[in-house]
Amino acid sequence: MTTEAFPDVQKITYQGIDGDRPLGFRRYDPERMIAGKSMRDHLRFASCYWHTMRNPLADPFGLGTSQTPWDDGTPSVENACRRVGVFFEFLEKIDIDFFCFHDRDIAPEGDDVAESERNLEAVVDTIESEMKSSGRRLLWGTACLFTHQRYASGAGTSPLVDVYCHAAAQTKAALEATHRLGGEGYVFWGGREGYGSLINTDMKRERRNLARLLHMAVDHKHRIGFKGQFYIEPKPKEPTTHQYDADAATCLNFLREFDLLEHFKLNIETNHAWLAGHTMEHELETAMDAGALGSIDANMGVWTNGWDTDNFPTDPILGAQIMRCVLKMGGFTTGGMNFDAKRRRESFQPLDLFHSHVAGMDAMAHGLEIAAKIEADGGIDRFIEARYASWDGDLGRRIAEGGSSLGELRDLAAAAGEPDLPSGRQEMLEGMFNRFL
Amino acid sequence: MTTEAFPDVQKITYQGIDGDRPLGFRRYDPERMIAGKSMRDHLRFASCYWHTMRNPLADPFGLGTSQTPWDDGTPSVENACRRVGVFFEFLEKIDIDFFCFHDRDIAPEGDDVAESERNLEAVVDTIESEMKSSGRRLLWGTACLFTHQRYASGAGTSPLVDVYCHAAAQTKAALEATHRLGGEGYVFWGGREGYGSLINTDMKRERRNLARLLHMAVDHKHRIGFKGQFYIEPKPKEPTTHQYDADAATCLNFLREFDLLEHFKLNIETNHAWLAGHTMEHELETAMDAGALGSIDANMGVWTNGWDTDNFPTDPILGAQIMRCVLKMGGFTTGGMNFDAKRRRESFQPLDLFHSHVAGMDAMAHGLEIAAKIEADGGIDRFIEARYASWDGDLGRRIAEGGSSLGELRDLAAAAGEPDLPSGRQEMLEGMFNRFL
Amino acid sequence: MTTEAFPDVQKITYQGIDGDRPLGFRRYDPERMIAGKSMRDHLRFASCYWHTMRNPLADPFGLGTSQTPWDDGTPSVENACRRVGVFFEFLEKIDIDFFCFHDRDIAPEGDDVAESERNLEAVVDTIESEMKSSGRRLLWGTACLFTHQRYASGAGTSPLVDVYCHAAAQTKAALEATHRLGGEGYVFWGGREGYGSLINTDMKRERRNLARLLHMAVDHKHRIGFKGQFYIEPKPKEPTTHQYDADAATCLNFLREFDLLEHFKLNIETNHAWLAGHTMEHELETAMDAGALGSIDANMGVWTNGWDTDNFPTDPILGAQIMRCVLKMGGFTTGGMNFDAKRRRESFQPLDLFHSHVAGMDAMAHGLEIAAKIEADGGIDRFIEARYASWDGDLGRRIAEGGSSLGELRDLAAAAGEPDLPSGRQEMLEGMFNRFL
Amino acid sequence: MTTEAFPDVQKITYQGIDGDRPLGFRRYDPERMIAGKSMRDHLRFASCYWHTMRNPLADPFGLGTSQTPWDDGTPSVENACRRVGVFFEFLEKIDIDFFCFHDRDIAPEGDDVAESERNLEAVVDTIESEMKSSGRRLLWGTACLFTHQRYASGAGTSPLVDVYCHAAAQTKAALEATHRLGGEGYVFWGGREGYGSLINTDMKRERRNLARLLHMAVDHKHRIGFKGQFYIEPKPKEPTTHQYDADAATCLNFLREFDLLEHFKLNIETNHAWLAGHTMEHELETAMDAGALGSIDANMGVWTNGWDTDNFPTDPILGAQIMRCVLKMGGFTTGGMNFDAKRRRESFQPLDLFHSHVAGMDAMAHGLEIAAKIEADGGIDRFIEARYASWDGDLGRRIAEGGSSLGELRDLAAAAGEPDLPSGRQEMLEGMFNRFL
Repeated sequence: MTTEAFPDVQKITYQGIDGDRPLGFRRYDPERMIAGKSMRDHLRFASCYWHTMRNPLADPFGLGTSQTPWDDGTPSVENACRRVGVFFEFLEKIDIDFFCFHDRDIAPEGDDVAESERNLEAVVDTIESEMKSSGRRLLWGTACLFTHQRYASGAGTSPLVDVYCHAAAQTKAALEATHRLGGEGYVFWGGREGYGSLINTDMKRERRNLARLLHMAVDHKHRIGFKGQFYIEPKPKEPTTHQYDADAATCLNFLREFDLLEHFKLNIETNHAWLAGHTMEHELETAMDAGALGSIDANMGVWTNGWDTDNFPTDPILGAQIMRCVLKMGGFTTGGMNFDAKRRRESFQPLDLFHSHVAGMDAMAHGLEIAAKIEADGGIDRFIEARYASWDGDLGRRIAEGGSSLGELRDLAAAAGEPDLPSGRQEMLEGMFNRFL
Repeated sequence: MTTEAFPDVQKITYQGIDGDRPLGFRRYDPERMIAGKSMRDHLRFASCYWHTMRNPLADPFGLGTSQTPWDDGTPSVENACRRVGVFFEFLEKIDIDFFCFHDRDIAPEGDDVAESERNLEAVVDTIESEMKSSGRRLLWGTACLFTHQRYASGAGTSPLVDVYCHAAAQTKAALEATHRLGGEGYVFWGGREGYGSLINTDMKRERRNLARLLHMAVDHKHRIGFKGQFYIEPKPKEPTTHQYDADAATCLNFLREFDLLEHFKLNIETNHAWLAGHTMEHELETAMDAGALGSIDANMGVWTNGWDTDNFPTDPILGAQIMRCVLKMGGFTTGGMNFDAKRRRESFQPLDLFHSHVAGMDAMAHGLEIAAKIEADGGIDRFIEARYASWDGDLGRRIAEGGSSLGELRDLAAAAGEPDLPSGRQEMLEGMFNRFL
Repeated sequence: MTTEAFPDVQKITYQGIDGDRPLGFRRYDPERMIAGKSMRDHLRFASCYWHTMRNPLADPFGLGTSQTPWDDGTPSVENACRRVGVFFEFLEKIDIDFFCFHDRDIAPEGDDVAESERNLEAVVDTIESEMKSSGRRLLWGTACLFTHQRYASGAGTSPLVDVYCHAAAQTKAALEATHRLGGEGYVFWGGREGYGSLINTDMKRERRNLARLLHMAVDHKHRIGFKGQFYIEPKPKEPTTHQYDADAATCLNFLREFDLLEHFKLNIETNHAWLAGHTMEHELETAMDAGALGSIDANMGVWTNGWDTDNFPTDPILGAQIMRCVLKMGGFTTGGMNFDAKRRRESFQPLDLFHSHVAGMDAMAHGLEIAAKIEADGGIDRFIEARYASWDGDLGRRIAEGGSSLGELRDLAAAAGEPDLPSGRQEMLEGMFNRFL
Repeated sequence: MTTEAFPDVQKITYQGIDGDRPLGFRRYDPERMIAGKSMRDHLRFASCYWHTMRNPLADPFGLGTSQTPWDDGTPSVENACRRVGVFFEFLEKIDIDFFCFHDRDIAPEGDDVAESERNLEAVVDTIESEMKSSGRRLLWGTACLFTHQRYASGAGTSPLVDVYCHAAAQTKAALEATHRLGGEGYVFWGGREGYGSLINTDMKRERRNLARLLHMAVDHKHRIGFKGQFYIEPKPKEPTTHQYDADAATCLNFLREFDLLEHFKLNIETNHAWLAGHTMEHELETAMDAGALGSIDANMGVWTNGWDTDNFPTDPILGAQIMRCVLKMGGFTTGGMNFDAKRRRESFQPLDLFHSHVAGMDAMAHGLEIAAKIEADGGIDRFIEARYASWDGDLGRRIAEGGSSLGELRDLAAAAGEPDLPSGRQEMLEGMFNRFL
């Protein structure tokens, strides 16, 4: 771009906690080494195209408020390509290395499948060239199978096989675009894969059909030589009354049932975890214990609101909980921390794009610091280890290996009498955690 | 018993919708044939010992209010056996064929494992004799692994292997008692199998240990020749912050992960479904689609309250939703409709035991009537079949069998153009449902 | 209109429970007398313009699906007037007497205040003439103070006084239009009168400013001679994080604090009640006990979803609970039963407008029948009266009139000893309620 | 006491953030001056007798686990007096100045009113003497009107006038005990003042009776010369399905309706705020704006659990939000920060009493530090002031004083054209907040 979209914004840099520039990082110091890696490499921040470039900031009761002077409002490919330039200027100035996209966010849907594919290719050309010159990378791509009217009753779970074919066509093109852009992953979020009501739904058939689509995507991945990681993304509801990928455990059940677990990991989002009635830690731990924690949608919800608010994750305690899990699993491999977060409808100026990302990045970096200190201190981990120490003995090992029986254990209990239970010390541990804030 | 506990109550019988006896069924007509079976055989009602005989109707802010003149308040075996007589008088008068129990509800815990086993056996003797003379049957038994202090941090998921041995001892004895009483099933409800906080918990290890306990129970079942069905029971939380058997899908994931799915079905409870953020229909359907719908805890919650209120299921629309699922799967086999329901703390008189069961039985019988009419009418089912008809063609079948690819489907979509989506007609179908109330 | 918008739909009439026309009432028999009035006069159904004519059936993740062949998609006054004709054809065919509107639903916003007013007047001309020829009536009008970008941070609670002036201008014009059309009421729903976050909000000032706007509206009402009833409408959240008119009690507190209670009643909506964590009965009762139950938005939510789904109220038990309250207060005066309900996004055909209204009208009519039977039977009311009978004595009356003291009551308690509490019999009463389904 | 109950615990003192004593404050430095007062005087911590001394740590599914070697388990007055000594040892060692109690927590209920009063007096004698020697003070007292069976259907809202007399008797005695001990306040928490179901309830009558009881308490307060502050405490539900004092706005409505607002302030609890679907900030602000913020129950809930968990408030961000409000209103007068918090059921050792209070005190002290820094910085406050600056002009003032009209404002809007709305900058402000963690 010859004209800057954000002429008043310089590249954001670290200024320290007491810095007084309105736009400077106070916690995120990208090259600072911590727990063996730079903050940049730990956090692998990504900005998402849909919120940063395409979210009008509308809500069910109000029109879009977002100010985008660079956008002429037309669904043309030219306009789409111009937006790409603005996005890469943004990535450069906010100092974020990765991005994520949906096919329909970057390129306009055409009148038919072929035209949609051509539109996508044209914009991908532009993106590819921007990536080359800027060194930015694609964390993951995906197909938008929920906005168009044809998907009103589902895409991979549509009652109409013709709709399913369209979903397959979009998946194929988006997968190929992701492959071409060197994406490290590809996400399936099933926003319409659920039901409005069971009164008109054959849930069993729908779930089976969805599994088939994923198997075909795995086949296609191999066919084209794409090496990136596949993810599914749990969300319990909204837009549907109930989505099939409701939470981490439900996704794992689905992947196991249809022999897909070896091909997929999970992309976990805080706001989705909360809507499912879980903490983010619970969902991360559930995925991790199954070897299936892949990537993170970094946002947060509003506990008192029952819908997906996609707030920027400005809570450093949440950040610390997330980063404790990430450190525990040895860091991200293909995954990263994608800001699936949107500015509030009242934060409609371009400048708010920067303020919101800075606030989120600082909170996650702060979280990383806290998590690293807790890990270095080791007190909480030692407590847990000691708490389960009785399982490290002979009997514990034998039970774990399947070498005992109710009869044997009954006799041991009868002989040993009442066990002496130690305190769980939850409050003491919460105090230990707080030491590192 | 020589003296009746409920001298003022006669055996409850059907009186028709306009009957004016305060205690008579208005919908439940046990021998009436409907959809090929008697109401009695469709519904397989069970009363549960813990609520009917042992629930003091206390709550976290108040003392027990329940009036039980037959109970001397001591933890003696004599008192326990006297209660058995009262319970069978109740079953006789309320005309319920089945019952369910926990080991600790029927018999007092002793000072050690051996004494607890002796106490249990003594009471089981009495129950056995009452069963013989009354013809009542045991729907399922279970062990109470959540009330005693030793289980504060879990039973099958305790951090202490010594506690785990006690859990095994209780499971063994309860399983044998269930076998002896001809139980048609055995339930594992993991009230303490979860966590208060992840800050002191090794979730991965706890879940693995729990799976081991279930495997040992399967082994023991075979050892003693018990042919009844094993069930686990989903509940998301309470008493713990988060339980491992959170909902039907989570249970299925657990059973698949640890190779237990062939040995277990699910016992689904309405109030637990609601606490997990699901409808009862969703949970039943989820279990049924996996071939794992076993039995039902018939109660309901209060939507505006976030804990387990275990209200009697007095909503006939809920009854209809439940019975539509039960009819759809061809009826209960080993399972039944167990009233895991307690009277309100303000309904503390013995007479309220009858009023509450009558209200629940009538509502479920009404639900059966509605469900049977909907099935006989067939309109809703035909709508669903027609809605998915495109999947019955060649292409649909081929996809379902794994014989297609993204490439083929993309070409079909490109050739066919935009599909014509029919309306989902949810409101019309809701109107059709209401016709049968 | 010379051409019908719904050529395949005839006027919907009562066909009885066993009728087999897809579009005929099965419970709603408009002229049938029940509890002293016709069903029509009890229920006073209204259709709302925004959902029936203007809702595109979009959601936060998907485009509008609604099919409206009569609408040319332009924001012209001609198009707006053409829609009026379609709406009155709909009212005629569905046999609904009343309607409700927002200024911006019926007429397009202009480039400035004056043009917006002219647009509104032009459409009101058309409506007036349709009302005359059809005999339909206006239940209430209102101004849409939440969709436009200028109201992003509030209308009557905007931080900018200039925005507040626009809100005043719109209120003035909408109030005058309502007056001209003989509206029986006028509603203030404060969709933006709340906050996204307290971190940038002066709640105290905002609430005071809102009260001022309502006082000016009262003054203007008197100035123009409008005799209709003013209502405010509780909703706890969405679109904002927290709305000031959160629930019935919060609204009453606001009205009392700012001396507005004599001028306003409440318009209570089921879905809003549920979002606030209340039952609809609770909200109706709260309003009624304060003499402030005015009108009802008849819809329902989905308990498992935390946003405003505005489902059609197809639950006859909900209908019975609502109509028990309405009968208890002696029926509606200026108020009515307004279907603030939208079809599901999958129910996008014009025909679904009829199916959904029929299902809702039948369920509410069924509810009326049940409520009338319960009232005629009188058993539940007699139980309540008897339960509080001790308060009808001398002491009870004296306490109620302020003529006693802690000292006197303490002495009575000391003398009388422990009281004998009767059972609350909730389950028995729920069974009595079910008799009348 | 000659024998210490906590022999292994020394008086807890400040050790700084890096101190490594397991039991030492890391944030709470009582005499440190901050924002013009010592931390001690800002926070006015209180320990509550019921949780610290009397909570068995039972839950609806499990027996009490709390270890209390000093308690002989009898309901004798001697035992009760012995507990008082333990409590004052605890207050001394934890360095908390204030306490709160219920009548029934400190003294056993007798066989009749007179005996209950004598028991209470005997224990109050002991407390009085401990207070004298230790210098500890009573923040507030209250009567337990929810545990006993007689209050199953309400105390001040009982359907039986005889029960109401008992409630009056208890209130009288507890009020007099509070007065004698120099209490700075008296709380009315209406745990049973609500309903299980509306089907058997006369809500209007019950609320009126409750108001009468409060008026009699006001009269009695004047009669005995008690100068302390009266509070009511919002809670939406639990133990009842719906409590009348549901949230701050509902309480204010009640107080206004029955002319009690001048006599009462609110005692706000975080966990209750959350159960009502509000943030703590919202409830504090609501109370403060009405001049009715009195005192605080410092605890927190678990967002994913729908009941009152009364966790210790170990979240310093919550602490900062609370203390920002307290600073904004100029600090507590009669009120304070009462730990209405209980240890987890797994934290059953006496030592956990100290760990949990230390964690809570440190988090609240940390919160105070953060809040004081935010106030000193002033950036957030300045932003808010500037945001509403248009209201400080002539027009804004005139509107606020009631000197304008819809007509005038309409003309201004018509003349001025579209206003230019500034961004709400929520994310920027959240980042500013985080600077001070």
